[in-house]
Amino acid sequence: MTVVTLLTDFGLVDEYVGVMKGVILSINPRVTLVDITHDIAPYGILQAADTLAAAWHYFPPGSVHLVVVDPGVGSERGTLGMSVGGHRFVAPDNGVLTRVADRDVDCAVRLDKPEFFRDAVSGTFHGRDIFAPIAGHLSLGLPLQRLGSVVDPSEMVRLASPKAVSGPDGEIRGHVVGIDRFGNLLTDIGRLQLGGSGTPAATVVVRVGTHTLQGVADCYAQADGGAPVAVIGSRGYLEIAVNCGHAAQRLGVRVGDPVSVRLMSGVPDERQGLDGAPSVDERQ
Amino acid sequence: MTVVTLLTDFGLVDEYVGVMKGVILSINPRVTLVDITHDIAPYGILQAADTLAAAWHYFPPGSVHLVVVDPGVGSERGTLGMSVGGHRFVAPDNGVLTRVADRDVDCAVRLDKPEFFRDAVSGTFHGRDIFAPIAGHLSLGLPLQRLGSVVDPSEMVRLASPKAVSGPDGEIRGHVVGIDRFGNLLTDIGRLQLGGSGTPAATVVVRVGTHTLQGVADCYAQADGGAPVAVIGSRGYLEIAVNCGHAAQRLGVRVGDPVSVRLMSGVPDERQGLDGAPSVDERQ
Amino acid sequence: MTVVTLLTDFGLVDEYVGVMKGVILSINPRVTLVDITHDIAPYGILQAADTLAAAWHYFPPGSVHLVVVDPGVGSERGTLGMSVGGHRFVAPDNGVLTRVADRDVDCAVRLDKPEFFRDAVSGTFHGRDIFAPIAGHLSLGLPLQRLGSVVDPSEMVRLASPKAVSGPDGEIRGHVVGIDRFGNLLTDIGRLQLGGSGTPAATVVVRVGTHTLQGVADCYAQADGGAPVAVIGSRGYLEIAVNCGHAAQRLGVRVGDPVSVRLMSGVPDERQGLDGAPSVDERQ
Repeated sequence: MTVVTLLTDFGLVDEYVGVMKGVILSINPRVTLVDITHDIAPYGILQAADTLAAAWHYFPPGSVHLVVVDPGVGSERGTLGMSVGGHRFVAPDNGVLTRVADRDVDCAVRLDKPEFFRDAVSGTFHGRDIFAPIAGHLSLGLPLQRLGSVVDPSEMVRLASPKAVSGPDGEIRGHVVGIDRFGNLLTDIGRLQLGGSGTPAATVVVRVGTHTLQGVADCYAQADGGAPVAVIGSRGYLEIAVNCGHAAQRLGVRVGDPVSVRLMSGVPDERQGLDGAPSVDERQ
Repeated sequence: MTVVTLLTDFGLVDEYVGVMKGVILSINPRVTLVDITHDIAPYGILQAADTLAAAWHYFPPGSVHLVVVDPGVGSERGTLGMSVGGHRFVAPDNGVLTRVADRDVDCAVRLDKPEFFRDAVSGTFHGRDIFAPIAGHLSLGLPLQRLGSVVDPSEMVRLASPKAVSGPDGEIRGHVVGIDRFGNLLTDIGRLQLGGSGTPAATVVVRVGTHTLQGVADCYAQADGGAPVAVIGSRGYLEIAVNCGHAAQRLGVRVGDPVSVRLMSGVPDERQGLDGAPSVDERQ
Repeated sequence: MTVVTLLTDFGLVDEYVGVMKGVILSINPRVTLVDITHDIAPYGILQAADTLAAAWHYFPPGSVHLVVVDPGVGSERGTLGMSVGGHRFVAPDNGVLTRVADRDVDCAVRLDKPEFFRDAVSGTFHGRDIFAPIAGHLSLGLPLQRLGSVVDPSEMVRLASPKAVSGPDGEIRGHVVGIDRFGNLLTDIGRLQLGGSGTPAATVVVRVGTHTLQGVADCYAQADGGAPVAVIGSRGYLEIAVNCGHAAQRLGVRVGDPVSVRLMSGVPDERQGLDGAPSVDERQ
C-alpha cells in the first residue's frame, strides 16, 4: 500500500490529473493516491517548491511524490528522480525540488531509460508519459538506480529563492511568500531565525505594510476582533493573520511585499518562547 | 479498509488537506480516504454542520468522519469525539456536530490524551496535530473511550440553527439555507414537516421572494423551460429549482431569505404524496 | 482492487460527490475511487463526452466509469450500462457516452432492475440512487447483463458532435472545442485527419481568429516568447498554445470559434511528421 502523492498546476477541470492516476494504477493497482494540490498557479515553480516542502515529510517513509509543474515540457529541460529521507521524488529538473534538496540527498538520477516510459512519449504531457509511469514503478519497489542514471545532486537546477536575511542592525528582512485560503500572510522568516524557543514571544516586533505588530501570539484567536496578529504558522514560519478575517485584504498586502522583524529589549518576559511547528531549516 | 471522510473549510489550493491525509496514512496505511468537501466557506460552521448531516449516513457503518472547521483553533474551545449509529466523528467542539447529535449519541468524549496527538501540537493547525491523528487511531479500531474522557453529550456546544416553524395559521415559515452548484435553493423545510407522503403534492403552495409556486414536482424536468419548480431535493428538504437554469440568479434569492409554504384545500388530488429522500428529522 | 472513476458536473462544494462515493463504498469497500473531474460546466453533456473520451482508456481494463451529467434526472430519459474494450460505463442515456460508443460496443443494457438501486429512488439524484449502486455492483464483478436488459447500441442517444470536415479544396475546417487550464485551445482536428506521421510538420498552416501559424511544433517551448504555437496536444488533436501564456486570452478566441488547416506544398521538409498521442479516431 505505497502512497503516491501528486502536486501539479493542472487544476481540476480538465482530465489531466485523472489520466496520470490511470497510468499509475495501470502499473500498480494497489497504490494509495493522495492529492497535495493541483491548484498551483500555472507554471508556478516556486509556489510548488514551497508547497512540497511544507507537505512531503508528513507522509509515511517510502512514499513517492510526483511533482509536475512543467513549463518546459518536451524541451531540453532535464528530468529528475531523487531520494531524501526515505522518500522518493519525481519531477522535471526545473527547480521544483529545490527546497527538498536542501536536505541530504541520498540519490539523484536522470530519468533516461525509455523502457520505463509509456510507449509513445508526447511533447506536451510528460506527466502522463514519463513521470507517472516512473512513479508507478517506484511504488512497486524498483530502486531509483534502475529507473535512471545516477547524477550528482549539485548538478540539478535550483531556484535562487529569496530568503529572509538578518541585517547588521539585528533586523530580519523577509517577504510575504504566499497568501492562503484564509487570507493569512505566509512569510519566509522561520521560527529558528527568530531565535526559536529561546526568544520571548513578547519581544518580537513585526512590520508589514503600514502596520506594526507587537508580540507573537500562540493562536489566531488571541487577537481582538479584526486586529492583525503574528503567529508561528503551521509551516513553522512567521505568519500574519486576522482572526476570522482575511489579513491580505485587511492590510492591503500582496505576495512579494516585505516583512521585517526586530527583537525589543527591556520587554517583560510574560510569555513562553516561540513554539510551533519546526520550519524547513530546523528539519534538516 | 475503514473509511475516513474529511470535511473542512481548507480549500484545495494549500497543502493543508494533503498534510492531514499524510498524518492519517502514517498511522494507518490501509485506510480509505474520501473527501466530502473542503470548500465550506472559511469559518462556516453552520454550513459544515448541514453538509455533514446530508452526507455521513451514506457511508459504511464504522466510518470515521473528520470535520475541521475551526476558527477557534488553539484557544480554549474544546475538542470532541462522538459515536452515533455506528459511525465515529472527530471535530472541534464548536457546534459543527450539532445536526448529527440530534440523533442518539452513543458516546461522546473530550480528546484530552496527548499521547494520541502528534508530538508537537501547534496553536494554528489542530486538524494536523490533534484531529487527524485521532481519526487515524479510530480507524485502526481503538475505541473512543481510549482516546478521550467520556462527557455528557448535553455539554457539547450546539448551534441554535434556524428551523422552519409552523404558524397558527398553518403556514410553514422557513429559510433558504444554501444554494448549490446548480443554483438550486435549499431550504430547511423537511419532507415530513410538509406532511410526507400523506400530503398531495398538488396542494402545496410555496412562496419565495416575489414568486408563488403551485404544487411540488417529482423532478426538475417537469418544469417548463425557465419556470421555477419546487421539488423534494436530495437532502429530503423542499428545494426550488429552474431546470437547466440557476434558480438563485433567476429569482434573485439569497441564503437567509424566507420561504413559506401553505397547503391548499379543494385541490384535485391528481398526483402522489410527497415522496423523496428522508430528511434529517425522519432519520432519527 | 477494481477502479471506479467518477466524472460529473456536481462541483466540489456540495456533498454530492462524497455521497456517491459513500454509496459505492457501502457496496464494495475494496474499490479504488478516482475523480476524472467534477467541474464539467452544469448540464455540459458534450464537454463531459469529450473529457471521458480523453481519459477512460488510460485506466486499467476492468475499470468502471461512472458519468453523471444528468439534466433530465427523474424524467423519462433512459439509463445505460455499456461495455467497451474491457471497460464498463454507467450513465444516463443522454449522449454522454457518444464518443466511447464510436468504438466497438461489446454490450449495452438499460438499467431496469430496481433490486440493484437504492431502496428509495428520488426524482432528483439518480447519481446516488441508481448509477452509484450499479457502479458498486459492477466493481464487485457482477456482469452487465445481470444489472439490466440488453439493448441494441444503435438505440442509445448520440450527440451530433460537430466534427472537423475536409473541404474539396483540401482545407480542413474544425472548431475550438475546449480551452484548458493553461488557456490552450483544444480543437476537433485529429492527428490522423492531418495525415499523421506522413505529413511533414512544417507544411501545416493553421488559421484561428485573425492569426495564421506556420508549422506544427514538437512542444510548447519551441515558440518564441509570447508567440502562438500549434502542437499535437495530449488528446491527439491539434492544439494552439502560447508557451507560459494563455492562448485563449492572447488570441481572443472562444469555444466554438472556427479553426482551419491547409497543407502547403513546396515547403522544405526539415522536420519529422506529425507525431504525438493517438487521437480518438486512431484508437478505434
